[in-house]
Amino acid sequence: MTAEVILLDFWPSMFGMRVRVALAEKGIEYEFREEDLRNKSPLLLEMNPVHKKIPVLIHNGKPVCESLVAVQYIDETWKDKAPLLPSDPYGKAQARFWADFIDKKPYELGKKFLWEKQGEEVEAAKKEFIDCLKLLEGELGNKPYFGGEIFGYLDIALITFYSWFYAYETFGNFSIEAECPKLIEWCKRCMEKETVSKSLPDQRKVHDVVTEYRKVLGVQ
Amino acid sequence: MTAEVILLDFWPSMFGMRVRVALAEKGIEYEFREEDLRNKSPLLLEMNPVHKKIPVLIHNGKPVCESLVAVQYIDETWKDKAPLLPSDPYGKAQARFWADFIDKKPYELGKKFLWEKQGEEVEAAKKEFIDCLKLLEGELGNKPYFGGEIFGYLDIALITFYSWFYAYETFGNFSIEAECPKLIEWCKRCMEKETVSKSLPDQRKVHDVVTEYRKVLGVQ
Repeated sequence: MTAEVILLDFWPSMFGMRVRVALAEKGIEYEFREEDLRNKSPLLLEMNPVHKKIPVLIHNGKPVCESLVAVQYIDETWKDKAPLLPSDPYGKAQARFWADFIDKKPYELGKKFLWEKQGEEVEAAKKEFIDCLKLLEGELGNKPYFGGEIFGYLDIALITFYSWFYAYETFGNFSIEAECPKLIEWCKRCMEKETVSKSLPDQRKVHDVVTEYRKVLGVQ
Repeated sequence: MTAEVILLDFWPSMFGMRVRVALAEKGIEYEFREEDLRNKSPLLLEMNPVHKKIPVLIHNGKPVCESLVAVQYIDETWKDKAPLLPSDPYGKAQARFWADFIDKKPYELGKKFLWEKQGEEVEAAKKEFIDCLKLLEGELGNKPYFGGEIFGYLDIALITFYSWFYAYETFGNFSIEAECPKLIEWCKRCMEKETVSKSLPDQRKVHDVVTEYRKVLGVQ
C-alpha cells in the first residue's frame, strides 16, 4: 500500500526542511524518501519533470513541487490545526513577499560565497548576505515570530536556513550572532519547538557536507 | 485626497500588466502612476525599499510588492467578484507552481536573447524558451483557460507576455504561432476580454521600445 503522504527530499536541503516543518506543525504522518541527487529516482523524475528537484510532496499520488507552494498547500489542505499563513490578506501578502525575498536574495548570495572562489564578487555577496539578514531582522522587529505571537509561514521559510548558519559563518568568515543578535534569538526560540528541531539536521553535519562539496568544486 | 488604490507601474512591464488585469477583473478603480525607471519617484523608493521595482500596488497607503503577491492580494481582498485562484488547494498549488515557473524560466530566458549578444548561450536560450512555452501549452491542454472554464490567476500570469511576443519573435527569429498554435489560440481568447486587451499595450509599441533599448545596450 502506498502511503497517503510521501516526501521526496534530501536531508541537507533547507527547502525540503520547510516541508518537513510544515507537516510536523500539522501533525501529518508521512513517508520520508531520501533522494540521491546524482542518481535521481524514477519517481522524482516522474513527479517533477519540469525542475527535477526535491522537495516533492506527494499527496494521494499527486505531486506538489516547490517548497513554498508545498507549505501553502499543506496549510490549505489541513486547515484544522496550526494555521501557518496569517488570516488577513495584507498579512498573507507580507509573508509571501518576504518568503520570496529569502529565495531571491540571501539564498542566491549564500550560494555565491559557498560555491565560488574568493574574489571581489564573492566579498560583495557576503556583505549583501548580511544586509539581507538585517532586513529580515528589521521585519521581525520585537515580535516573537514574524507573523506576531504565532509561529507560521515566514518563520518556516527562514528557520531552515539556521541549519546552514555554521557553514555560512565558517566560509563567509563572519558571525551572524554579532551582526544580527535578535535574529539569532528568534532562531533559538524557533528551535525550542520540536516541530522545528526534529526537522532540521545538526549545523555541523551541514558544515561537513558543504566542506566536502567545496572540495569537489575545487573552491578550497 | 489620496486615491484608495494606486499602482506604480511602467507601461511595457508584463509584471505591471498582471496587476492591471487583476484590478480590471475585479472592477477596481485606481490611479495609474507611470514611473521613470531611470529616475524613480521618492514614493516608489519609499514603498518598495527592498527591490525598488515596479509594480507596487498601494492600498490605503500600504504597499504590496511583487506582481504575483499583488495578484493574490487583490483576489483575497476583493473576494466578491471574479475569483482568480482556483478554490481547491491542489488547483491553487498548480496555478502557483506554473506562475512561478513563468518567472523563473521563460522570462529569464527571454531576457537572455533580447538583451545579450548572439552566441551559443543565446541560441540555447531561444530553444529552451520555446520548450517552456510548449510545456505551458501542454499544461493548458484542451481547456479554454488554464484553470478550466474560467479565466484566472495563471492566465493573468502568462497573458501579459503576449504583448512581448512580437519582440520575442523578431529578435528570437522564430514564430510562436508555428511552434505553439494552441497557446496562440488561448492568447486570442484572453485578448477578447476587455479586462485583458485594455490592460496590455500594442505588441508593436513593445517591439519599438525593445529595439531602442537594444541599441542602448549595443546588442544590435
